[in-house]
Amino acid sequence: MRVGELSKRSGVAVPTIKYYLREGLLPAGVLTSPNQAHYDEEHLRRLRLVRALVDVGGLSIASVREVLAAIDTRESLHKKLGAVQEAISQPGTTELDPLAIEDVQAFFARQGETECADVTESNVTHMLAAALSAARSVGHDHFRDLLDPYLEGLKIIAQADVDYIARQRSRDDVIEAMIIGTLIGDAVLKAVRRLAHVQVSRDVIGDGPVDSTS
Amino acid sequence: MRVGELSKRSGVAVPTIKYYLREGLLPAGVLTSPNQAHYDEEHLRRLRLVRALVDVGGLSIASVREVLAAIDTRESLHKKLGAVQEAISQPGTTELDPLAIEDVQAFFARQGETECADVTESNVTHMLAAALSAARSVGHDHFRDLLDPYLEGLKIIAQADVDYIARQRSRDDVIEAMIIGTLIGDAVLKAVRRLAHVQVSRDVIGDGPVDSTS
Repeated sequence: MRVGELSKRSGVAVPTIKYYLREGLLPAGVLTSPNQAHYDEEHLRRLRLVRALVDVGGLSIASVREVLAAIDTRESLHKKLGAVQEAISQPGTTELDPLAIEDVQAFFARQGETECADVTESNVTHMLAAALSAARSVGHDHFRDLLDPYLEGLKIIAQADVDYIARQRSRDDVIEAMIIGTLIGDAVLKAVRRLAHVQVSRDVIGDGPVDSTS
Repeated sequence: MRVGELSKRSGVAVPTIKYYLREGLLPAGVLTSPNQAHYDEEHLRRLRLVRALVDVGGLSIASVREVLAAIDTRESLHKKLGAVQEAISQPGTTELDPLAIEDVQAFFARQGETECADVTESNVTHMLAAALSAARSVGHDHFRDLLDPYLEGLKIIAQADVDYIARQRSRDDVIEAMIIGTLIGDAVLKAVRRLAHVQVSRDVIGDGPVDSTS
């Protein structure tokens, strides 16, 4: 297809497509004449993925490039998934509290995880230490006690994610499902978490009258 | 204490404190002379909460004002928690897919929830429909199948949150723990979710050799 049809089918404007081509986020089409290139289904697919990363994931062009590089490496699927997850975890700018770093390391040790325990080596671990540092800054040192039950609940969720990924047909579908699942999944989790809070808090706290002791 | 000490103890610059006072995010101090006001521990506490909402939650001043209004209403604790959660859920600008709205309504119906099932009435429900719309836009209609297992895992997490909140001593501590827990908890969940993925995917997919079928 020509760039016009690629634009129509993807819903992405032609100038944006040309920008992605210049930035190397989309491989060049096959030239059919000096001024005309031909694109195929693979281009359409990659273009939709780039849009999802930008729109849903809110990733910068630089992060999108990192994710695509992780996808395109020749590594085992497990390693590739890990690399993609690192690429979509934006390291924050929060200053880390040394005590929060200790909390994270103790948590990883309890879980028998040594692979990503170092905050300087993993964006994901850095993100966790940053969140615990923020909790500590407002006096919630004991927020670390939630890490173990959180992981317990998240393993049920991760199992559902992995089952969903395993239902995909091709290797490309698997990678795409993993990225979409992680980015969109974070937003879904955030929303469904509110519903879980409502359900659990109604059971525990009840929908009683106004507490007049405030 | 004077504004200088409030600044020192909170780590918030005096001009920022004055800005919060003008915006009504912080109640005025008691005037001890025409040019001098006195602040107490309640001011310090509220100031730290405002900072957490801005820094950790990334909330706008308008959203912070909504959260504080929800805290200060005279409602039951359950309703107050619901109002705060609505206030900290920023409605996105994504166009909603009518089929995604149907998915959300079917999910709420399965859960026997009628309270917030309408996307026009709840930011949280809107956020969920927006995430599913994004999944549909990249061909992942079946992402909706993950809602039920997600809720199952999130109930374990919500139980831990509610237990954490219940350990707080005063009513103010409870509200604060809820807000901090929701905002910081989202960041912690995101990071720990990666660890859960790594653990589950290692079990299922294995750390095998490069798949040469790609």
